Amino acid sequence: MLEGVRSRAPEGLGDCSAALFQNIMDISKYLQYRELHKDAPSYTYETLHLSPDASIACQGMAGANAETAARQIFGEDCKPRFVPSFEDVFDAVQSGSVRFGIIPVQNSTAGSVVQAYDLMGQYNFYINQTTVVEITNCLAVRPGTRLADVRTVHSHPQALMQCSKFISRHGLDPQPYSNTATAAKMVADSGEPLAAICSEGCAKLHGLEILQTHISDYVPNYTRFICISKELLLPENADTVSVMLTLPHEEGSLYRLLSKFYIGGMNLLKLESRPIRNGSFEVMFYLDFSGSIHDANVCALLSELAENLEYFKFLGNYSEI
Amino acid sequence: MLEGVRSRAPEGLGDCSAALFQNIMDISKYLQYRELHKDAPSYTYETLHLSPDASIACQGMAGANAETAARQIFGEDCKPRFVPSFEDVFDAVQSGSVRFGIIPVQNSTAGSVVQAYDLMGQYNFYINQTTVVEITNCLAVRPGTRLADVRTVHSHPQALMQCSKFISRHGLDPQPYSNTATAAKMVADSGEPLAAICSEGCAKLHGLEILQTHISDYVPNYTRFICISKELLLPENADTVSVMLTLPHEEGSLYRLLSKFYIGGMNLLKLESRPIRNGSFEVMFYLDFSGSIHDANVCALLSELAENLEYFKFLGNYSEI
Repeated sequence: MLEGVRSRAPEGLGDCSAALFQNIMDISKYLQYRELHKDAPSYTYETLHLSPDASIACQGMAGANAETAARQIFGEDCKPRFVPSFEDVFDAVQSGSVRFGIIPVQNSTAGSVVQAYDLMGQYNFYINQTTVVEITNCLAVRPGTRLADVRTVHSHPQALMQCSKFISRHGLDPQPYSNTATAAKMVADSGEPLAAICSEGCAKLHGLEILQTHISDYVPNYTRFICISKELLLPENADTVSVMLTLPHEEGSLYRLLSKFYIGGMNLLKLESRPIRNGSFEVMFYLDFSGSIHDANVCALLSELAENLEYFKFLGNYSEI
Repeated sequence: MLEGVRSRAPEGLGDCSAALFQNIMDISKYLQYRELHKDAPSYTYETLHLSPDASIACQGMAGANAETAARQIFGEDCKPRFVPSFEDVFDAVQSGSVRFGIIPVQNSTAGSVVQAYDLMGQYNFYINQTTVVEITNCLAVRPGTRLADVRTVHSHPQALMQCSKFISRHGLDPQPYSNTATAAKMVADSGEPLAAICSEGCAKLHGLEILQTHISDYVPNYTRFICISKELLLPENADTVSVMLTLPHEEGSLYRLLSKFYIGGMNLLKLESRPIRNGSFEVMFYLDFSGSIHDANVCALLSELAENLEYFKFLGNYSEI
């Protein structure tokens, strides 16, 4: 069909004519799906209720930035359970041993937290809320340690990356740790002139002295956390949808995917890609876009993608606190 | 104009009509640029000549995977100069102390090398060639060391990430190093039962014993390297173009950007985004697409983007060896 359009177009206009007809056909297909799904049942969900009594898993230990995220979502009195790794958070949620999990996904300086995205493909969960925490990276030491004596600095790799200029300016050796708070505890427990990069609150919690605050290369510095659950839970004002999907090996497949969002008036908020790890450079796409599953346009699009893509997963409909 | 179309459309078809008219206007604009630029001078360039005598900078030391990349591009007899960091490679190229630099940009398991992308925004350079190296990660120790005695494993963070399942299965403590080859040398020079993750060739070069080969979580495992130069150098068969750019804060801006590539028949090969680091979650986009700057369509598109985007940079036109 498109080849016919291309060959009958005036000289030099074949590509443009085919592109225009492709757009008309994609719009028609979208309208068919919208008609088909206008009365379709939407997803089965419960309304999200946030209470400080909720069972919540965070990676790290008391003083971690994930704990701040949990307090922003569930209230100051919440008591998160701390587990060693991001994977343990997903595990705890999927197994039902906690109802909620807190995971960092994006930092304004270091970019996406790729380990979190890679784990999203391996677990069943939904995002029900996001929150943004300002990260104030401090250089923290045991009381009395001088900066001149510090050789190694310990923290989460993302925090080390966020402070890479400070670290190299002071000739420090960066040593990665699973979490900023565990690094702070290790420094506090050691007898050595080590330093940790962590938040002010975390330094105080572990009795460390802050040698310098705001040592991030770029200030301000924010991290977005997602709150996940095993069941689909919707906040009242859910306005953002996340999906993950693979695209066919066809010219323009990403363009044509985005055209569907554009036609339906859903604004793309984030596009991330991660390797599918089969030895090729092919990727899994993660998209965040504005919308609500109470909107027939959004339901039609989700149904079209679920039916037509080789891999498609709906990751939830949520808002930011 | 689009609002007029939207309001005059039959009920329920406003969004679709506006989207169709947007597409028609974008195609018209593209055709105007193509008409304007059909005789436009293209970029000033020299033809790329590859010789083993070329001066080349690689990060790391003899045995690094970047050295294999250099040999694939410049021939077995080339003699790269080794520098400590990726930034030193960009520095050496920009200052003119070497003509070429080799930088890893993408791994099939761990994804994009984000440090390389972040440096691209800070230096002036062009990509003139790419090559893909198979990474065979081995666990290498000083002769006589047994796996049971090994506690820590040292390597580049990307290699540690590529082998994370092996590392956790054996209860090893991963310690990042600037480069796989420097990690191998450190293990060789130490008196301790340490292990390095590096290539077979690198282990042999440093007199290490290979305890286990192919320890990557996902096999096969490939890394793509770019070859950069200060001037624009074009290989005879250049078929890929790279650009970096920012997009306006408008609904559908990425969709409309990709529509221009689609209309012009240029296939998007890779889309990467990195934070612009102003405390927001806004990003810089890096796009690779099929095309040659000898093609009027490509020149028209590059001119349109350079004239209309707040930030746009042409990063070269190259092929893969």
